[in-house]
Amino acid sequence: MSNLLRLEDCLEDSPQTRALIGVYERDCDLLLNYSKGLNAACKRVARAQNELTMATQELAQKLRDYQHTKFSLTSEDDLVSTTIQQLLPNVDEISSFNTVLHTQLVDNMDYHSTEFVEKDMAEYLRLKSSFVTSDKQHEEAAAKLAKISKKKPSEKGWQEATDALYASRKGFHNTSMVYCNFLNN
Amino acid sequence: MSNLLRLEDCLEDSPQTRALIGVYERDCDLLLNYSKGLNAACKRVARAQNELTMATQELAQKLRDYQHTKFSLTSEDDLVSTTIQQLLPNVDEISSFNTVLHTQLVDNMDYHSTEFVEKDMAEYLRLKSSFVTSDKQHEEAAAKLAKISKKKPSEKGWQEATDALYASRKGFHNTSMVYCNFLNN
Repeated sequence: MSNLLRLEDCLEDSPQTRALIGVYERDCDLLLNYSKGLNAACKRVARAQNELTMATQELAQKLRDYQHTKFSLTSEDDLVSTTIQQLLPNVDEISSFNTVLHTQLVDNMDYHSTEFVEKDMAEYLRLKSSFVTSDKQHEEAAAKLAKISKKKPSEKGWQEATDALYASRKGFHNTSMVYCNFLNN
Repeated sequence: MSNLLRLEDCLEDSPQTRALIGVYERDCDLLLNYSKGLNAACKRVARAQNELTMATQELAQKLRDYQHTKFSLTSEDDLVSTTIQQLLPNVDEISSFNTVLHTQLVDNMDYHSTEFVEKDMAEYLRLKSSFVTSDKQHEEAAAKLAKISKKKPSEKGWQEATDALYASRKGFHNTSMVYCNFLNN
């Protein structure tokens, strides 16, 4: 993504910055949605490859079983048995190719795709929700101070509301900076 | 199988021939059982290969979808897009390999294995049951003739029973020959 969102702007909290954050969020939501779909497709390929590996192993085992099937009327060197002996190394080889393929798919595709959805995208959702929360807290603190200022305020009540507003603004600035920083990457 | 069972012996219907037919039948039952298991394993491999083909096609489609995802903040030549463009021909190639593999598995393995179980082995079961039936009919016809011979038989009843025995013996011989011939192959 481009670096349109600058940290200094986030601290200003202007309507323009808010609108820009909205644009970033829509892109992030699109990306989250797309990544989930891609991740599901990756998982399906890995699962299918795993099933193919197990099916090939089962086939190899069935071919091996022929030797242990006690037919009364066949000799050790009958045609079926000989053919199976020639076929088995190939099936075993295909089976081990399939095992390697499955491991590579899981390690190189499924793993990274899942990490992205479950770590990066989860972090986005966490920061987004945290931004909304501290924005709300900040607005509530400001409203409370305004209310106290209009009435005849006690010095203590006014001081408390001011402190709360200051703390919430600091919290909002921190959250906002981390969030904007994340969106920029 | 070896050719221990000779057609001339089948016509004699001696206890030795019966015992030999029994040995052939045990082998056929074993083979039928084994073939069913092998056929199931073949079908599982073909099914898994088909699922892998479809999963790879879905993955290729998901990668293609990225181009149509309307992000606000990415340009046409962003890194993800470029990487996907480089990756897509490979995924498409793997996808078409998988399609060819699936077709070959179905045509060369699944088909013949299913044919063997559903045609040859079904023919065995049909002939086996037909052998049992005509054996029974022959014995019943012989018993009926013996009963008529013991009582004072009318010429007509005796002649009918003799004809029935002759017909059933002919039927048994035919069935027996076809069955023995099948068992020998």
